[in-house]
Amino acid sequence: MEIIRSKANHLVKQVKKLQQKKYRTSSYLIEGWHLLEEALAAKVPIEHILVSEEHVHRVSGLSNVTVVSSDIMQDLADSRTPQGVVAQLFLPNQTLPDVLTGKFLVLEDVQDPGNVGTMIRTADAAGFDGVFLSDKSADIYNMKVLRSMQGSHFHLPVYRMPMTAIFSALKSNQIQILATTLSSQSVDYKEVTPNPSFALVMGNEGQGISTFVADEADQLVHITMPGQAESLNVAIAAGILLFSFI
Amino acid sequence: MEIIRSKANHLVKQVKKLQQKKYRTSSYLIEGWHLLEEALAAKVPIEHILVSEEHVHRVSGLSNVTVVSSDIMQDLADSRTPQGVVAQLFLPNQTLPDVLTGKFLVLEDVQDPGNVGTMIRTADAAGFDGVFLSDKSADIYNMKVLRSMQGSHFHLPVYRMPMTAIFSALKSNQIQILATTLSSQSVDYKEVTPNPSFALVMGNEGQGISTFVADEADQLVHITMPGQAESLNVAIAAGILLFSFI
Repeated sequence: MEIIRSKANHLVKQVKKLQQKKYRTSSYLIEGWHLLEEALAAKVPIEHILVSEEHVHRVSGLSNVTVVSSDIMQDLADSRTPQGVVAQLFLPNQTLPDVLTGKFLVLEDVQDPGNVGTMIRTADAAGFDGVFLSDKSADIYNMKVLRSMQGSHFHLPVYRMPMTAIFSALKSNQIQILATTLSSQSVDYKEVTPNPSFALVMGNEGQGISTFVADEADQLVHITMPGQAESLNVAIAAGILLFSFI
Repeated sequence: MEIIRSKANHLVKQVKKLQQKKYRTSSYLIEGWHLLEEALAAKVPIEHILVSEEHVHRVSGLSNVTVVSSDIMQDLADSRTPQGVVAQLFLPNQTLPDVLTGKFLVLEDVQDPGNVGTMIRTADAAGFDGVFLSDKSADIYNMKVLRSMQGSHFHLPVYRMPMTAIFSALKSNQIQILATTLSSQSVDYKEVTPNPSFALVMGNEGQGISTFVADEADQLVHITMPGQAESLNVAIAAGILLFSFI
């Protein structure tokens, strides 16, 4: 069994680069056994699996496996407690289908990777049909987003495009657009029953939704808060709304 | 105006120690303008306010202010983008009242500081009357918990004690105990209407609730997930349940 121990190795250097967004043009990196299992279950093509020498027994039967030293794995892994495996996957080609129908979550300029990942995971749990991200939202192939998504990007399509393109796609498919505001001027979510096909827009952590979204949405909704906290975390608000609307 | 520029200064050393749990026996540290405003609004006694020299104009009129250099502030602040102010506050003495009534959130051994802070903030937003933390949960005076709580610990009491003590306090006050499971063997939350006084128990991120909690709770509840994700983040699940039960 050959074990790569040099950081100068071509494959190691190529995989390491994928930690940076600018190199993620055709591939990305996942880390840990749970995500690898999700990738295998979803039958997505896997370019390379890199496993540290202590864990090589866990990948028997898999193709495209390269064994690396623990030091190399430490360097390739992003988390503080590396699990001993990373894999290079092809970036999926997420083109919009001709006809859109169902329930969608739309994230407008959500910045925090943990929030983006958690909301996609929650939309997956709630059985949503897809997620739209504005082009100014956090990159979903960031390791932190991937960790908090827990493989949900293998279960539902995630489209990334400008907000104007998202809205024209939704409108041309007659999908009702609900947008979440912090203002009690809008309708409380408990009084809203969405159409069978709808999209829920969550705004930026600090700014909320843009005036474009507020103007173009079919319905503005808020969550009435009887307590003293000024606001909810955006991912918590999304969880409350997604599960209320299904 | 005297500006402290030495890390050897007695007050600076004392405040810096509060970053470590073992020194938080009678005081703790908050960071940033929002938390300071919340502390002032809640009228909690403030031992010391340390402000960096550029921001000294923002604390005019306040007592117990010490001005420090930007370098010192950088060292005292925990966040990557320090806001220029930290304050030392007395740890509150959270003793249980003789009679407990209302709505409570109970966290059993929740480990992640962000999850603990976000759930306390959500319970505050939902108008809950208090939060119980098992003694093995993350310390709420950890800077990361304080950041995600956004001052909610000034709005509602947070009691920390062993799970057995929490349950005996709840039971002796006839408070209905609901506990969240991952198992679909329990009742879906949409079919549950809690009593006017109830407590909702959320379990550890990996293990869920303990067998003690499962055995002693009055009602086990779960969130039905129509999608493919295996589970929800514990703070998201808490958000869905807290807002559903009010």
